[in-house]
Amino acid sequence: MRGAAAVVGIGQTEFSKDSGRSELQLAAEASLAALEDAGLEVTDVDGMVTFTIDPTDDLDLMRVLGVEDLSYTVRLPHGGAGSGATLCAAALAVASGAAQTVLVYRALNARSGRRFGRARNPGEMPATGTGWGFTSWAAPYGALTPAAILSLDVLPYMERYGVTNEDFGRYIVGIRDFAATNPRAWYYEKPITLAEHQGSRWIIEPILRLLDCCQESDGGVALVVTGTARARDLRQPPAIVLGATQSARNGRSSAARAFAMAGVGPEDIDVAMLYDAFSPNVFHALEAAGFCRPGEARDLVADGVIARGGRLPVNTNGGLIGEAYIHGMNLLSEAVRQVRGTAVNQVDGAELAFMSSVGGACVLGPC
Amino acid sequence: MRGAAAVVGIGQTEFSKDSGRSELQLAAEASLAALEDAGLEVTDVDGMVTFTIDPTDDLDLMRVLGVEDLSYTVRLPHGGAGSGATLCAAALAVASGAAQTVLVYRALNARSGRRFGRARNPGEMPATGTGWGFTSWAAPYGALTPAAILSLDVLPYMERYGVTNEDFGRYIVGIRDFAATNPRAWYYEKPITLAEHQGSRWIIEPILRLLDCCQESDGGVALVVTGTARARDLRQPPAIVLGATQSARNGRSSAARAFAMAGVGPEDIDVAMLYDAFSPNVFHALEAAGFCRPGEARDLVADGVIARGGRLPVNTNGGLIGEAYIHGMNLLSEAVRQVRGTAVNQVDGAELAFMSSVGGACVLGPC
Repeated sequence: MRGAAAVVGIGQTEFSKDSGRSELQLAAEASLAALEDAGLEVTDVDGMVTFTIDPTDDLDLMRVLGVEDLSYTVRLPHGGAGSGATLCAAALAVASGAAQTVLVYRALNARSGRRFGRARNPGEMPATGTGWGFTSWAAPYGALTPAAILSLDVLPYMERYGVTNEDFGRYIVGIRDFAATNPRAWYYEKPITLAEHQGSRWIIEPILRLLDCCQESDGGVALVVTGTARARDLRQPPAIVLGATQSARNGRSSAARAFAMAGVGPEDIDVAMLYDAFSPNVFHALEAAGFCRPGEARDLVADGVIARGGRLPVNTNGGLIGEAYIHGMNLLSEAVRQVRGTAVNQVDGAELAFMSSVGGACVLGPC
Repeated sequence: MRGAAAVVGIGQTEFSKDSGRSELQLAAEASLAALEDAGLEVTDVDGMVTFTIDPTDDLDLMRVLGVEDLSYTVRLPHGGAGSGATLCAAALAVASGAAQTVLVYRALNARSGRRFGRARNPGEMPATGTGWGFTSWAAPYGALTPAAILSLDVLPYMERYGVTNEDFGRYIVGIRDFAATNPRAWYYEKPITLAEHQGSRWIIEPILRLLDCCQESDGGVALVVTGTARARDLRQPPAIVLGATQSARNGRSSAARAFAMAGVGPEDIDVAMLYDAFSPNVFHALEAAGFCRPGEARDLVADGVIARGGRLPVNTNGGLIGEAYIHGMNLLSEAVRQVRGTAVNQVDGAELAFMSSVGGACVLGPC
């Protein structure tokens, strides 16, 4: 599968708090933008990949776009954690010949419509295929929001390694600096200081403050994946899928397998996009991928390694916290921009980009 | 992908109207039975495939079974139509190396729990990823049940080719004959005559009678898919996946591609399993797969071609109408039994088995 497929198009809508239109419309706009970016036609599409929780039906998207048929269409479980696995699902379809051109899409009105950050009614079972069944075990302890459920894992980590909310704040200052120079970001031209982070109200004391949490966003992102041979003749420089994996358990397994498939190690990566629904996710992801040893993420952050100008810039679009929370898909499109050399916060000489969520990981590189 | 993977294990629970236990429990029992059948361990499993509408979360099933991690886990849209595509999704994971051993599962309490056959509240949107969004277009015309929605397509077919409900009844008599000798079937030892079929009440006049409709069933089915080289050393004779495809549009495209991949044609098939939520589905499937020309399915049925002793026996377990409605998955396990030579209604000398639903098709054969 190594190198068999490439991301050849990226597209998106604006990111907002009130899109004023349906999620189907957002998915269609992002899809058309991605195809236009690639220089491909709607009739080229014969595969689709999205999330189990995406509200846009593939049959509906086919109809509104004019796609003729799909020889591969699957959905990935585990909420936003599925984002890191989308390129695995798309690339293996292309590698095996099941599809030639796969559209990966995700669109949500997560601020003007259903707000994921809110407390779940503990009597309401999570939707099928979300991977959220385990949250029922947290409900009796009063952990009803994603922030609260995550904190059950984060507190022992903080205590074990002496990590504080100020450490998380240093990560936030770094990505808000990236967001401040990214016109697509909700927090464009709005950098913050550590004092401002520390002045934001507690959500889960002493773990998460308001500014540690991702946004609730409306918007859509789409990517187009096709075979590498064909990718070379298209409009954009292809971002080759060198490694792409899925995991149902944790980020460590999928990152290690993605590196092995790509034939590179963490030390070879020039820029990384790490799923950041909450700031501690990035500490976990840095350690799970082997960018540092367990407990050392705080030092990477404090030393500026992952900030602008550092050795391994992370979430150069501002992340899900600074740009928008499109369930990780805008991290993938930013990884593609970095490989192309067209990011607003371009990392000089970046060749290899890494992206991960708990559910998967991938390594992208140039031809 | 041709011949790279094989079905090496099949498992199921009893099929009933009141399982008395959760769908997670049914999925786990069927999975353990399939692994036992294959002679594999729970720890061998590293992939899962199910339906978007399956209520059992893969993370929950992992936990109760003791599966360590999944390097491939996807869900297929479009309700029971996804059944025909499950082996495509499993085989391409194996062929590409994304997973070694894929568990395909589906469990439902569709009689004692949520009953799919009932009218949908037209104000209630279908669940995400089901492919049922189009049913909203039928609701204003009063078509609120699966039977009514299907009939919108079937009536023009009947008028065009002069097909009557009696023609559908002849199919039903044939599969109830198979069910009558299948101890797993709900209608075991209960064959019917055409007169009895014609005496059952209309559901949608003049299209569907009660006995044209599948059951509402409780139960679970699981299959284990692994690489062909390994399959040869396992407990059962493997059923090689010679061709396996998916479609989001109709059965014609996926059947033609499955035959092309397998390098065989409809005339080479010894036994076929065709998704029969309602009797007319089989008429469509026979013509879509090219077993006969459009409008000729009634002749195949009338001439006994697809019944016991015919040239192309169809749904030898009794079908979803005669055995149980486990969303097509019990047709796949019956196809495997026919290839193994162990079906209760074994077709003498059967080598190549075909299975299809609107969402996919596959060709299975011996080593």
